[in-house]
Amino acid sequence: MSSQESKAQTVKDFMEVFPDLVEEFLREVRTRNFPEEAVQWIKKSFDHNIQGGKMNRGLSVVDTLKILQNDQLTAEELFKSRVLGWCIEWLQAFFLVADDIMDASITRRGNPCWYKMEGVGMIAINDSFILESAIYFFLKKYFRQDSYYVDLVELFHEITLETELGQLLDLTTAPEDHVDLSKFSIEKHRFIVLYKTAFYSFYLPVALAMHMAGIKNEKAFKAAKDILLPLGEYFQIQDDYLDCYGDPEVIGKIGTDIEDNKCSWLINQALAKVSPEQRKLLDENYGRKNPKNVAVVKQIYKDLEIEKLYKEYEEQSYSRLNDLILQLDDSLIKRQVFYTFMDRIYKRTK
Amino acid sequence: MSSQESKAQTVKDFMEVFPDLVEEFLREVRTRNFPEEAVQWIKKSFDHNIQGGKMNRGLSVVDTLKILQNDQLTAEELFKSRVLGWCIEWLQAFFLVADDIMDASITRRGNPCWYKMEGVGMIAINDSFILESAIYFFLKKYFRQDSYYVDLVELFHEITLETELGQLLDLTTAPEDHVDLSKFSIEKHRFIVLYKTAFYSFYLPVALAMHMAGIKNEKAFKAAKDILLPLGEYFQIQDDYLDCYGDPEVIGKIGTDIEDNKCSWLINQALAKVSPEQRKLLDENYGRKNPKNVAVVKQIYKDLEIEKLYKEYEEQSYSRLNDLILQLDDSLIKRQVFYTFMDRIYKRTK
Ligand SMILES: [Mg+2]
Ligand SMILES: [Mg+2]
Ligand SMILES: [Mg+2]
Ligand SMILES: [Mg+2]
Ligand SMILES: [Mg+2]
Ligand SMILES: [Mg+2]
Repeated sequence: MSSQESKAQTVKDFMEVFPDLVEEFLREVRTRNFPEEAVQWIKKSFDHNIQGGKMNRGLSVVDTLKILQNDQLTAEELFKSRVLGWCIEWLQAFFLVADDIMDASITRRGNPCWYKMEGVGMIAINDSFILESAIYFFLKKYFRQDSYYVDLVELFHEITLETELGQLLDLTTAPEDHVDLSKFSIEKHRFIVLYKTAFYSFYLPVALAMHMAGIKNEKAFKAAKDILLPLGEYFQIQDDYLDCYGDPEVIGKIGTDIEDNKCSWLINQALAKVSPEQRKLLDENYGRKNPKNVAVVKQIYKDLEIEKLYKEYEEQSYSRLNDLILQLDDSLIKRQVFYTFMDRIYKRTK
Repeated sequence: MSSQESKAQTVKDFMEVFPDLVEEFLREVRTRNFPEEAVQWIKKSFDHNIQGGKMNRGLSVVDTLKILQNDQLTAEELFKSRVLGWCIEWLQAFFLVADDIMDASITRRGNPCWYKMEGVGMIAINDSFILESAIYFFLKKYFRQDSYYVDLVELFHEITLETELGQLLDLTTAPEDHVDLSKFSIEKHRFIVLYKTAFYSFYLPVALAMHMAGIKNEKAFKAAKDILLPLGEYFQIQDDYLDCYGDPEVIGKIGTDIEDNKCSWLINQALAKVSPEQRKLLDENYGRKNPKNVAVVKQIYKDLEIEKLYKEYEEQSYSRLNDLILQLDDSLIKRQVFYTFMDRIYKRTK
């Protein structure tokens, strides 16, 4: 099997677990004699909010475990690594449903946001809670007997809190209704990015696979974190870049970071380079819904060559990460885990 | 010490733990070098959302443990039962912050709802998440070494899901913007009430104390549930009653169940008794924000003597619960636990 075929098969095998997990959860609700209408509501929420993404986070659990165990996984280990992968996808859905409300977003993955769907509205908040609860239902169902069960539960708790802290910083640094660019800084941007994205998207999948592989050494988890957090930082900066310069058809959403007054990498780079006149224009035009205001901001980005700056950052970041991986003590955790991540995210277009 | 003094002292001792728990959590955030602005935001959210309630749920953990252990608690046991009590208060705050958004409520405990506070808005959703995360932070901090740690964590997960399922049923049975009284039924009302209130308000505090007391027998937990869920059902029916007939000054909020199209005990009793003419009036006036519509509904309640019906229900419920407690196998769990609950909630005015 070529590497390409094998990748497609991995994705297919991963996806096949999804309907079974949904069914498991719905069965639990049905055994409580809940009205079928409510059961179908949950199914609709799960289908809408968990599917349609790139599943990189979920797939990373499976891929990482394969690398850690030299491709020697039993059918049960394969299945359980997929369950953990889906738990991350459920976690992400929990965050995204709420994030879209808080950001007043319109679309997600090419579809309307869940709260924008007919008849949903603010009920979406409770639906996000149920998405989160499903994680612990699955962990209990499939891992209760494992020695690392508590580690998994605590890891999800910890990463969840970290992501919420990142969201808090993001939301309070850049409230939608009050533009104050003096609140922004490259330093604060870094903090937001690490917390709201890097922990759950990069460290979590690898740490879950490490627990399954029986790794107990705290130093190994620390070493993984030291590489994966900077990698996640790069990923989010890339996300900020694509929000402005990506093709909406390809990324499946219309970027609104400028309109939403987001503390994005782009605006922080611009703020560090602007002339007083340009700064005045940014103050007057950033964080406004009007397309004319957005156009002014984009023109300043162009004048300051922010896109070029990003390309340079990307190159530098790539080589710095490669150095970090080369310096890794391979006896703690295999180097290959991290190269796989690098290949997946560098120079992506979506 | 008189029973009254002792009760006041119990409340005082319980309350003194709160600032320390808040400080513990904030310290955790500060060690991550989070900007002090974000730390203060969390403090403000905790202070606003957790304080000012009756704390019945939290106090019940302490009271129950005292009964289960014949008032022989070490200082550490006392402290830990208070921590568990506060965990319920944190859980409730998590639910209420979100519930107020979903119900478009204005006030809570005599104050503006959190999301209605200046500068908060939809950020309240993420704040509700952080309230929930704090529970698992406290459990890990204070119970990690205890044999029943996993039981506590799983109990919180389970009760959280049950409450969310109750909320889902509540929200989808009675959407705010679409009145359809044919969706209501006394049966559905019962389901909503058990799930959205009884599990976390009545079963949870007792079950937590039982774990601390070293009770392992599943039958004991089942027996407790069989009494506490009907007790919680009564409590919510009382809440529905007070929403319409309670004194806003006393209950600390202005009831809006009629305006909000709530599947309340009152409307379900009315629906079971109405003439076709009255039913038509209910269809036309229930779930509308206009005070004139509300007045029509209240007049029908009066004509149908719903308040009298409630008083009768209250008497019946009281004697039925007393019978259930008398029939309890006292060797599984002490009868006194349940009498204490009865005394606290029957014929309350707030
Ligand atoms: Mg967003
Ligand atoms: Mg956001
Ligand atoms: Mg983005
Ligand atoms: Mg409410
Ligand atoms: Mg509600
Ligand atoms: Mg009520």
